[in-house]
Amino acid sequence: MRLISLGKLAVEVSKAGGLGFIGSGYDISELEKHLQFAQSAFQGTPHSSPQSTLPIGIGFITWGAPLDQSVEIISKYRPAASWLFAPRDIEELKAWTEGSRKASPETKIWIQVGSVKQALEVLAVQPDVLIVQGSDAGGHGLAKGAGIVTLVPEVIDAVQAKLNKNEEGPIILAAGGIMEARGTAAALALGASGVVLGTRFLASPEASLPKGHQDAVLAASDGGQTTIRTTLYDSLRGTKGWPEDYDGRGVINKSWTDALNGMSEEDNKRLFDEAARKGDGGYGLEGRMTTYAGSGVGLVQSVKPAGEIVREVREGAKAVLGGINI
Amino acid sequence: MRLISLGKLAVEVSKAGGLGFIGSGYDISELEKHLQFAQSAFQGTPHSSPQSTLPIGIGFITWGAPLDQSVEIISKYRPAASWLFAPRDIEELKAWTEGSRKASPETKIWIQVGSVKQALEVLAVQPDVLIVQGSDAGGHGLAKGAGIVTLVPEVIDAVQAKLNKNEEGPIILAAGGIMEARGTAAALALGASGVVLGTRFLASPEASLPKGHQDAVLAASDGGQTTIRTTLYDSLRGTKGWPEDYDGRGVINKSWTDALNGMSEEDNKRLFDEAARKGDGGYGLEGRMTTYAGSGVGLVQSVKPAGEIVREVREGAKAVLGGINI
Repeated sequence: MRLISLGKLAVEVSKAGGLGFIGSGYDISELEKHLQFAQSAFQGTPHSSPQSTLPIGIGFITWGAPLDQSVEIISKYRPAASWLFAPRDIEELKAWTEGSRKASPETKIWIQVGSVKQALEVLAVQPDVLIVQGSDAGGHGLAKGAGIVTLVPEVIDAVQAKLNKNEEGPIILAAGGIMEARGTAAALALGASGVVLGTRFLASPEASLPKGHQDAVLAASDGGQTTIRTTLYDSLRGTKGWPEDYDGRGVINKSWTDALNGMSEEDNKRLFDEAARKGDGGYGLEGRMTTYAGSGVGLVQSVKPAGEIVREVREGAKAVLGGINI
Repeated sequence: MRLISLGKLAVEVSKAGGLGFIGSGYDISELEKHLQFAQSAFQGTPHSSPQSTLPIGIGFITWGAPLDQSVEIISKYRPAASWLFAPRDIEELKAWTEGSRKASPETKIWIQVGSVKQALEVLAVQPDVLIVQGSDAGGHGLAKGAGIVTLVPEVIDAVQAKLNKNEEGPIILAAGGIMEARGTAAALALGASGVVLGTRFLASPEASLPKGHQDAVLAASDGGQTTIRTTLYDSLRGTKGWPEDYDGRGVINKSWTDALNGMSEEDNKRLFDEAARKGDGGYGLEGRMTTYAGSGVGLVQSVKPAGEIVREVREGAKAVLGGINI
């Protein structure tokens, strides 16, 4: 949700009782603007007291975001959470964790992982929250992976086994393929304490994305067949710097089918650049603009306000769990 | 579970209150022997009455199994279910469905699908049960796919939308990554009426597989990273005939890493044949024998009797669902 979930979406999610994030990624140039928007939105509420953190989080892609300026911003705005993703190594993650904790001790450290191995490694920095991302997630994540059905319970068991006696481990949240009430209820059954939704919010008016991207998400169904994990979309967009074990899941489009049919990356890039000039018309199955989205695109069928999505998911999950008879 | 789940495993699963299957696949040469074993096992129980079907199912891979002889066997033994998988086309599936129904009208038709598209297509033969297989499953399935977290709810919605008013649709079961109580509870939360377990039973004494295969499953963990979907293992084993959109998930071994590093298939095949002569020693990370298994291998940590697995899953899922506080 890098540069898609910004001030508006984060605020609406938090107002509805979730915790919204500004997906800053590795570009913090407009981050302060969005944080100021959030500050204004919570002005006059208990969240604006000097004791309170700002009730939204910030997502950083640590391999690309500038540590020193990011830490200054954390210090100045004291978000509820710093979400750290895709470090090049554990030392980088340590530097970010220490920087954030020093700048704002009350800001919780959320760390995103995609394997049991990563989950155990990051325990070294004592995360407050582990986001366990399964392979159904949209956008970037580990190229190889498992769905939450196996990944979440195995991470829970492995983390529990590694903790010292009486040591309180991180809160574990599930991400990847959770679109609505049923996926949320399933994640709780798997042992997660909560869930993270990305793709579902692409179809909210508060998300900052081209209408073409949103329409392509609404149009897609059967995501296991119509989305694909690849680094092609990064290459076409000129995105460089992701650690090599990462790729991204997006809706299949002409760039993908042409590449499969042997088109050179040079030709593909040229056609991509042409499509970019078409705006919203450059998206879709016959388009070429990247539509990052998870395998659950088929469950996203209408645009809804972000707050309504949060409430539907929360109340719906309760109804699902209350309605199972076994 | 082709040729791994045979008479013994099927009987124990059914005795524990599940429905066990003889995974006949495309080789029915010993099928009658296993059916006779099952008949004996239920002799003297209400299941041996002329009115009752034999309380186990048979799994057929329809692109490879001989239709006429299979139908004769269905007629003779009247299993509770015919599980049909991987037809080349809908006509083949129709022939199997009609053949089985004519031979034994009480035998339920179970059809395995791996996408929303397949689920909608097979409604044409009015399956009694749809097994919705997610991408975390071990062994064969669609090469492209989604985990059950998105696939199961989308299939349920799509099937529901396609049914005529008052038409009763198929019972929907989830498969792929379900190893124990938590995955089972999650599948029920997703809307499935029940679950199918494969990989978990590889670690049961009733499964018919080399100890090397079983040990490799027990040893593996973090299956998103240590298993892979590929057609390589089929090629090495000389298995031909799978429709081209299928592959299989297995534990990564030397055959896979050598292939990744550019070894020719000829050399790889030669080393595979040598490893085959080592028996159990040919398995494992440094071995070459195929260890088909799902991404949940890390949740399989000990060998348990099949009946105990069934009871643990059933009672455990109730406890999981009863224990969630939201």
